[in-house]
Amino acid sequence: MVVVMTPEATDADVAHVVERVESVGGEAFVSTGVVRTIIGLVGDIDSFHHLNLRSLPGVGDVHRISDPYKLVSRQHHPDRSTVWVGETTKVPVGPDSFTFIAGPCAVESPAQTLEAAEMAKAAGATLLRGGAYKPRTSPYAFQGLGVKGLEILAGVRETTGLPVVTEVVDARDVQVVAEHADMLQIGTRNMANFGLLQAVGESGKPVLLKRGMTATIEEWLMAAEYIAQRGNLDIVLCERGIRTFEQATRNTLDISAVPVVQATSHLPIIVDPSHAAGRKDLVVPLSRAAVAVGADGVIVDVHPDPETALCDGPQALLGAELRSLAQAMRQLPPVVGRVDASTLVRTEAAATA
Amino acid sequence: MVVVMTPEATDADVAHVVERVESVGGEAFVSTGVVRTIIGLVGDIDSFHHLNLRSLPGVGDVHRISDPYKLVSRQHHPDRSTVWVGETTKVPVGPDSFTFIAGPCAVESPAQTLEAAEMAKAAGATLLRGGAYKPRTSPYAFQGLGVKGLEILAGVRETTGLPVVTEVVDARDVQVVAEHADMLQIGTRNMANFGLLQAVGESGKPVLLKRGMTATIEEWLMAAEYIAQRGNLDIVLCERGIRTFEQATRNTLDISAVPVVQATSHLPIIVDPSHAAGRKDLVVPLSRAAVAVGADGVIVDVHPDPETALCDGPQALLGAELRSLAQAMRQLPPVVGRVDASTLVRTEAAATA
Amino acid sequence: MVVVMTPEATDADVAHVVERVESVGGEAFVSTGVVRTIIGLVGDIDSFHHLNLRSLPGVGDVHRISDPYKLVSRQHHPDRSTVWVGETTKVPVGPDSFTFIAGPCAVESPAQTLEAAEMAKAAGATLLRGGAYKPRTSPYAFQGLGVKGLEILAGVRETTGLPVVTEVVDARDVQVVAEHADMLQIGTRNMANFGLLQAVGESGKPVLLKRGMTATIEEWLMAAEYIAQRGNLDIVLCERGIRTFEQATRNTLDISAVPVVQATSHLPIIVDPSHAAGRKDLVVPLSRAAVAVGADGVIVDVHPDPETALCDGPQALLGAELRSLAQAMRQLPPVVGRVDASTLVRTEAAATA
Amino acid sequence: MVVVMTPEATDADVAHVVERVESVGGEAFVSTGVVRTIIGLVGDIDSFHHLNLRSLPGVGDVHRISDPYKLVSRQHHPDRSTVWVGETTKVPVGPDSFTFIAGPCAVESPAQTLEAAEMAKAAGATLLRGGAYKPRTSPYAFQGLGVKGLEILAGVRETTGLPVVTEVVDARDVQVVAEHADMLQIGTRNMANFGLLQAVGESGKPVLLKRGMTATIEEWLMAAEYIAQRGNLDIVLCERGIRTFEQATRNTLDISAVPVVQATSHLPIIVDPSHAAGRKDLVVPLSRAAVAVGADGVIVDVHPDPETALCDGPQALLGAELRSLAQAMRQLPPVVGRVDASTLVRTEAAATA
Repeated sequence: MVVVMTPEATDADVAHVVERVESVGGEAFVSTGVVRTIIGLVGDIDSFHHLNLRSLPGVGDVHRISDPYKLVSRQHHPDRSTVWVGETTKVPVGPDSFTFIAGPCAVESPAQTLEAAEMAKAAGATLLRGGAYKPRTSPYAFQGLGVKGLEILAGVRETTGLPVVTEVVDARDVQVVAEHADMLQIGTRNMANFGLLQAVGESGKPVLLKRGMTATIEEWLMAAEYIAQRGNLDIVLCERGIRTFEQATRNTLDISAVPVVQATSHLPIIVDPSHAAGRKDLVVPLSRAAVAVGADGVIVDVHPDPETALCDGPQALLGAELRSLAQAMRQLPPVVGRVDASTLVRTEAAATA
Repeated sequence: MVVVMTPEATDADVAHVVERVESVGGEAFVSTGVVRTIIGLVGDIDSFHHLNLRSLPGVGDVHRISDPYKLVSRQHHPDRSTVWVGETTKVPVGPDSFTFIAGPCAVESPAQTLEAAEMAKAAGATLLRGGAYKPRTSPYAFQGLGVKGLEILAGVRETTGLPVVTEVVDARDVQVVAEHADMLQIGTRNMANFGLLQAVGESGKPVLLKRGMTATIEEWLMAAEYIAQRGNLDIVLCERGIRTFEQATRNTLDISAVPVVQATSHLPIIVDPSHAAGRKDLVVPLSRAAVAVGADGVIVDVHPDPETALCDGPQALLGAELRSLAQAMRQLPPVVGRVDASTLVRTEAAATA
Repeated sequence: MVVVMTPEATDADVAHVVERVESVGGEAFVSTGVVRTIIGLVGDIDSFHHLNLRSLPGVGDVHRISDPYKLVSRQHHPDRSTVWVGETTKVPVGPDSFTFIAGPCAVESPAQTLEAAEMAKAAGATLLRGGAYKPRTSPYAFQGLGVKGLEILAGVRETTGLPVVTEVVDARDVQVVAEHADMLQIGTRNMANFGLLQAVGESGKPVLLKRGMTATIEEWLMAAEYIAQRGNLDIVLCERGIRTFEQATRNTLDISAVPVVQATSHLPIIVDPSHAAGRKDLVVPLSRAAVAVGADGVIVDVHPDPETALCDGPQALLGAELRSLAQAMRQLPPVVGRVDASTLVRTEAAATA
Repeated sequence: MVVVMTPEATDADVAHVVERVESVGGEAFVSTGVVRTIIGLVGDIDSFHHLNLRSLPGVGDVHRISDPYKLVSRQHHPDRSTVWVGETTKVPVGPDSFTFIAGPCAVESPAQTLEAAEMAKAAGATLLRGGAYKPRTSPYAFQGLGVKGLEILAGVRETTGLPVVTEVVDARDVQVVAEHADMLQIGTRNMANFGLLQAVGESGKPVLLKRGMTATIEEWLMAAEYIAQRGNLDIVLCERGIRTFEQATRNTLDISAVPVVQATSHLPIIVDPSHAAGRKDLVVPLSRAAVAVGADGVIVDVHPDPETALCDGPQALLGAELRSLAQAMRQLPPVVGRVDASTLVRTEAAATA
């Protein structure tokens, strides 16, 4: 930490800061400049936070220097992690593979979910996404099928062999969702719902943590730290677009977040081009960009009949677009040194062997 | 609703849209332009939403025309509402008065809370704020005293007579918070925590709904609609700054939100200058601006000893700054036609009379 | 300046930074922490900039500590400045007064300009605004009357006695605009047009510098520094809204910018509520907020017939709204300790006396 | 255009709108809804703009429906364009090729420029970038060598055969820059400098138009329209990041802008990863993403000695990073169906043949 004094700060003000720092066991290095004095702090950062240094007389600013997250940082865990999803079939998400996740935005019926899952599988997906609990901006919009939706997902997993990723929106539902699904998704609106983060941190299941649509990368990693702090390091981050002034797309996909996160955290990171853009014509080019930038996977909306979809129909792929995506997902990962995750899948039999 | 066809749309595409609209009982008015065709829709908007019009062939864009919120809209409720807070002492927040709410960011101890409450009361505040549950970006930061904090607040209410506003961050805590507090606050990070909104909607207590730091005004009003839909219309909105590229202040106070909300919703709206700015030197000028723009109140952080505050010390007022605020809160409201809420307070005795 | 080394930086990396700093005559104070080393720099900041410290091996980050602007800073000029506008009639803009500027967005004809000026004057304005050169997003929109517009403005000044503020959009026009107008306005789109800033810096006329709609406050003050560096310190800043995700208003008025600027720069600062909001129903409340927050003035669009205005008709005031504004501009400034600028106006006769 | 009336609008208000529309030769289609009336307008849009419909009584909102740009739109020019840059050597930028542009941020000396150009050429670049006029935030920063820099660039073109792209920041310099360079760059700060846009529109040289750091895609295309309207359609757009709340990167690269622009305009579009990120470790992954998303090229900073660079050293590539970029630029374009622009270069001899 660095404390920057104001030009008007007195020697007594400087001495007061030094004294407070030393009172909690820290060391303070004073650099006296022509206009301002700077004080470098060495010691336990958490103890410094409690000092409220910004409130002391003569203090102009306080710069934090090291990362505020610990368990999810690469600092003490330099190798990037792989998260395995699924019970009988285990699918990796990590630095060596490229994982393609697809499925319908919302679970509407067994037939629609199965059909979407089969489309996803045929296109090369190895994990199935689908929402049973939908956080909707309007209380008058379709809110999801709840437990019935979870049961449909579990049934479709039986049929297709695809492990299931599904969103949980309320800490009270974590247990039932964890009983049915293979990976728990925290949506963009709940990234800072700390009680929910702690609950999934104790669920024993891998977590897919979407970036808050307005969260900085640092806040996002702090949200992951909340999960990790409860003992769960099986976290996959998902960039899904941030809110900006541009209105041509629903959100602005922050593609740079992928290498920025990879430089600072060991957690895998994937991209959701469907929710970022909100337009199906952008899903294929943005998925290609995600592979090329080095993402560990993508998650895409598909639907057998977008016209009748109860949620986000305009961004769901089918037909020619889905074939075009499937082709890109086969072709591009090897060019950037990635193996298709489907070739690394471990089935229970193999695991026992 | 207006459906705008692409320049390439065929007559069959137009006919298909018309047919879908009529299939749910709507009427479609077709305007054929030189380049594009526009279709005006008349009927039940919710039924149109299920049509996924944006997914139909030849559809370029769909413009919603009327407000998506109903219960909180002025459309069918043109008079602006007043919300009364408190049991034995009832304090109004609404169009005729100006309500000054103050207190510490976090409840730390009985002595600190009482001292802050007495500072607040002496400065003219009629409601006490204070946090027992603190949503913090870092899992390593002070998370609040929980139920113990609620008991401290209830005790201080006994002593000072000030009704209490406090935040609830988890649906599982709504009941216990409602038992102790007079008004439940939904913080900026939980504005889109729909389960929590529904829970406070059923709590029987007035709600202070802060704007999500990245929420549009429309999304904020939709969040209020979630509360209202559960039968609770005692909602006060609170503008507390939005996230922008400007770094000189923690957030950018969107002062225009006050008249914008008042033009479209009947709910009262107040301003939180402390959290918007994150700097105590801006609290007084921004509070003055809040009165002048027509807000129905302000909510301000005060603390007897900001240096030792466990939360947001740098923005808490005391001493000369608090006196300056007190003076402005006495002086300005009458100039813009507002009565100090303290003169309208109803005590139980008076109410029985 | 503070240089923060990465955790992996070697002693040699630290020594290299120190050596570079000393090579340009600076001093480097090294604070060795548990994880990282911090180096505080003392000396001439401009010379440090040329070192490209961020490019050196082992350097993680570089924090600038003092303000990058000099001439416009309060650091060596603690008293806030007053800028006087006009030749025969001199109108102050500064910390003691409140200056009300009004007029049409665009000069369309002698009659329309005179009528708008008389409306402005009757409402209490002491300076006339009006655009002869209009920077328009579309090349197909009305671009202003040019020199003919300047002549109209000069004529209306003769009739009404109101000094004239008008925009200049091209360095090649500065001379002719300076010959006709009393104050040169730099619009939001040209805040970073450095050639134009230098040209108005040499024009000998006061400058009204609008904030770039996406500029940070620091960049805005650096733009002012460009003007000041050419010898012109008669600069008034104008906050006019920044671009955010909120779409209910054309821009988001950053009302906090007023006290933030006043804390760091000695230049006067006014507010433009018309362009910030783009909606005439917000102009009066935002103007009241501007007075209350401590702005040194406002600049407002008025037009005798908004329906036929060639530019920004929807935000121009007339009739009841203008009367409401006039009343607020009379009533509020005294409450916050401001004198109406009209009472401080110096006419040539008075000045000679 | 669609005019949406307020719920309170009277029949007379509707009739007034219709009358105004018809007065300029348009047709108005009235759709009367339960709550609101909608009026669809057919006819010449420019004439409707002059009506100030938003100012009329009873009008709630006006939605524009068709694109405001014409010459740069794909509507009447469905095939995407190729722009050829250079005199004796002609390099294409367009839909069939992928063009790699590289060079130093600023021209500092003949030796540094030649060395950077040779690095760029060896890495596969076919166009040389380099700044002789630098728009800098601070008046105290290096402002470029001006005409001397242009002469250095022309000399380096002689030696290396690489056509030259360089920025022009002032309309008064357009002629001299056009005499020396092969392509004129408009920087992000000047995207809305309309006089400069018109001047390059008349220069007879191809233009590289960077997106304003805060411009919407629509505003950017309107800026291109300003150039096109002066008779110059040889325009290449360059996405270079927009300003958001995220601070980990200098700007947020809006990678979605590439397919969004290609869907609506026939102009080529390239990506500048160096200025978007401001960090050299992101340049290679973002360049790969640019190829994969379908961009027509990239423009990258390289410098023989970033430590001593006078401008933007921290983002300039050399050594291993540049080799890694060179490899990606060879490998990826063919995978997405692009030919390296170097294989399509036409030399004068070939052209004569």
